[in-house]
Amino acid sequence: MRNLTLLTDFYELTMMQAYHYAEAETGRRQMAVFDMFYRENPCGNGYAVAAGLAQLIEYIKNLRMDDDAIAYLRSNGTFGEAFLEFLKTFRFTGEIYAVPEGTVIFPGEPLVRVTGSLIECQLIETAMLNIVNHQSLIATKAARVCWAAAGDRVLEFGLRRAQGPDAGLYGARAAMIGGCHGTSNVLAGQLFGVPVGGTHAHSWIMSFATELEAFECYANLYPNACILLVDTYDTLRSGVPNAIKVFKAMREAGKPLSYYGIRLDSGDLAYLSKMARQMLDDAGFPDASIVASNDLDEYLIAELKAQGAKITVWGVGTNLITSKENPAFGGVYKLAALSTDGETWQPKIKVSEDPVKITNPGVKKIYRLYDAKTGKMKADLITLTGEVVDNHSDLTIFDPLATWKRMTLKAGAFTVRELLEPVFVNGNCVYPDYTVAQIQEYAKKERDTLWEEHKRLVRPHIMPVDLSQKLYDLKQAMIMKAR
Amino acid sequence: MRNLTLLTDFYELTMMQAYHYAEAETGRRQMAVFDMFYRENPCGNGYAVAAGLAQLIEYIKNLRMDDDAIAYLRSNGTFGEAFLEFLKTFRFTGEIYAVPEGTVIFPGEPLVRVTGSLIECQLIETAMLNIVNHQSLIATKAARVCWAAAGDRVLEFGLRRAQGPDAGLYGARAAMIGGCHGTSNVLAGQLFGVPVGGTHAHSWIMSFATELEAFECYANLYPNACILLVDTYDTLRSGVPNAIKVFKAMREAGKPLSYYGIRLDSGDLAYLSKMARQMLDDAGFPDASIVASNDLDEYLIAELKAQGAKITVWGVGTNLITSKENPAFGGVYKLAALSTDGETWQPKIKVSEDPVKITNPGVKKIYRLYDAKTGKMKADLITLTGEVVDNHSDLTIFDPLATWKRMTLKAGAFTVRELLEPVFVNGNCVYPDYTVAQIQEYAKKERDTLWEEHKRLVRPHIMPVDLSQKLYDLKQAMIMKAR
Repeated sequence: MRNLTLLTDFYELTMMQAYHYAEAETGRRQMAVFDMFYRENPCGNGYAVAAGLAQLIEYIKNLRMDDDAIAYLRSNGTFGEAFLEFLKTFRFTGEIYAVPEGTVIFPGEPLVRVTGSLIECQLIETAMLNIVNHQSLIATKAARVCWAAAGDRVLEFGLRRAQGPDAGLYGARAAMIGGCHGTSNVLAGQLFGVPVGGTHAHSWIMSFATELEAFECYANLYPNACILLVDTYDTLRSGVPNAIKVFKAMREAGKPLSYYGIRLDSGDLAYLSKMARQMLDDAGFPDASIVASNDLDEYLIAELKAQGAKITVWGVGTNLITSKENPAFGGVYKLAALSTDGETWQPKIKVSEDPVKITNPGVKKIYRLYDAKTGKMKADLITLTGEVVDNHSDLTIFDPLATWKRMTLKAGAFTVRELLEPVFVNGNCVYPDYTVAQIQEYAKKERDTLWEEHKRLVRPHIMPVDLSQKLYDLKQAMIMKAR
Repeated sequence: MRNLTLLTDFYELTMMQAYHYAEAETGRRQMAVFDMFYRENPCGNGYAVAAGLAQLIEYIKNLRMDDDAIAYLRSNGTFGEAFLEFLKTFRFTGEIYAVPEGTVIFPGEPLVRVTGSLIECQLIETAMLNIVNHQSLIATKAARVCWAAAGDRVLEFGLRRAQGPDAGLYGARAAMIGGCHGTSNVLAGQLFGVPVGGTHAHSWIMSFATELEAFECYANLYPNACILLVDTYDTLRSGVPNAIKVFKAMREAGKPLSYYGIRLDSGDLAYLSKMARQMLDDAGFPDASIVASNDLDEYLIAELKAQGAKITVWGVGTNLITSKENPAFGGVYKLAALSTDGETWQPKIKVSEDPVKITNPGVKKIYRLYDAKTGKMKADLITLTGEVVDNHSDLTIFDPLATWKRMTLKAGAFTVRELLEPVFVNGNCVYPDYTVAQIQEYAKKERDTLWEEHKRLVRPHIMPVDLSQKLYDLKQAMIMKAR
């Protein structure tokens, strides 16, 4: 286990020391509530998929400054001995609520809510954003890619182009949460118990005198997972005919292949897959898979499918593992409330010229509202924690910017669910340890609560995320006061 | 130290097992040479900056399959006991040559050349590409950003938006190699000895009753590094005037600030910086720094400078740490030669319809040619390892695609340097342990060998990367034979 305690921005530490001095001087510990939220869905998607909570939990559980860290901070010259002494025994003792991994989420919602001393809230900011931003980004991208593949298998193949080892490892994890069926990343297989796969490279073919020999050798060794790469020399004149020869030979030798097929890695994938499908079918191999790779993304997959490409498995690398079109998830972490006793909270707001950059003040939670009949999601409603929303009476909600956009949900015709769940209480983790397979299953159900209109790749229908009247009024009053 | 041995694509392992069986059957070990190279400079740059070698070395030194790894592979069902037994004692025993970190590099050049058994060459492919691709990408992006900043200080601020912990950590390292002057990433500071910095967030200001109190408290605590964030409420009406009040008070109290100034994090940075500069100068603080952040990249920095922005320090986050415009460095790893005795090498080529996708066959090295008078780089020349290039006679080189583009360098009027250096010999690391500061210094000298025309952000002048006549002839003959 690496110690990631110093994986933080320097300013978190300078602020922490300052808060520590203030505590020592006043004898009072200032308590705070911070929200992590994001402002815009990546890639123009209609939603995002929350991911990374398990690694955030691991990070917080392991937060401790070891001797090396203390020595390093001392050497910097900025930190006094009293603060360094405090850091030596520092542990996270606060409270964290978060939406479960795999949850469909929307801009402006508090995805992680941290309550604790200002000092501890500040320390965890950077790593939290780093971890949750990254995995939510890749999970969302994967959801897009899998939506385009419309039920076909999608494999994550991007490790070699990922932004470092963690980006490959946790990116593979997030891709599974977003809906991928497997990964080429063996370490991800080991650590997260997810299916791994892959067969051979061009170098395999080139290390034999002929393509046919390379195929024969491979089929003999791996009759249960025999996908032959057919584009090393000439896909339709050499690769596919040689693959068919090998499939026939194995069948004739009474050693039929169980999972088998070809992989296309260059050229026009629509044309080649249609031709290859015909050749395989004609030769009596209608169940042979056709795996395609080579710079795929959700747009190309959708186009290839629209053109009738006969591809059954999509191997997606660079564009998925880096979310190339939009490689950052803009999650931020903003102060929402302060307290000197941890009981009475003074709401805080950050005002900006730009309306979407104004934060929502106070200690908040999220209600998700569903249509009782279809089970499909209607809207999210952010409220203050003291409020209760249920379906016993009619509920009118409204857009916080265009307040004339109103919707009334009839009593009983909708259902209600709270999204934020307890993760840490008094510094102790109370959150269950889910497998990636469980999270993946949950994430799939989450996406099923959205109409297809919300999942469209380009200009999807926007889900309403509204504020309760009470929260709206508080926010307006604070904005007016600030100006 | 994490064990990254399984940070590999599954197909590397299936190929390795197959090669292992073949070895056992034939009693012969097939030896191979693989080249890592890339095909296109990221972001349309005129060159790239090699980075990541130190982490590649660390990875290879630590390659070993521990019990957990073996148990996991066994559980997969694909691998036999003989191969698993072999893996238990597997170590890298081959040879690696590479260009030093910080070297200016160009498409098509072998940046890392691996010689070893096919088995070991195959295992290290994925992690090598992952590590070197990532760091070379960020080092190159940083070089662009620093070029735009034209000598101003550039700070790497992207940890919270990096693609996971490693992307933040090694991205900060690479950013320093590319020319950044510091990072906000404390762990990078600890592990790589690079300067860290940063002061406070909006939450700091919001945790006080007034902005002025927040500034006063900060200045008293950190008189040696006092950059005040002035945009929490209103930059020009509140932030800058309050900062000036504090700077004056400190001066009047006989506690002058040593490094001080303001940070702008929103609004129009050109306008605000000019106004703030005037206000600071008028108040008698001409040496106050103006730090700017907020979605900066090389294009925006160049534009802001062109508009006379009075910014002295640039904090660059998301766009640098993810290389947002182009978040993947397309390094590949291709078979170049095979041998059954490790002495006589049979060159190998991968032919493609696309000329830039055809590989260079054989065991190769790179000569860099400089103008003797100016010290500026003239061209790179890739040759076979047996060839010798010196400046004792005239040298004519030519473009390998447009062969009529020729250049003759006069004897004595140019100098010659070989780029590839030994890193591993017989599995032992022979490469020195350079500090990041040393690599950064070397990288700066490397960039100084380029004319500004090669460093332009958009459509830069292209450096010739040519093949020796012998290598060119070999390649042509092999292409003709393959078709």
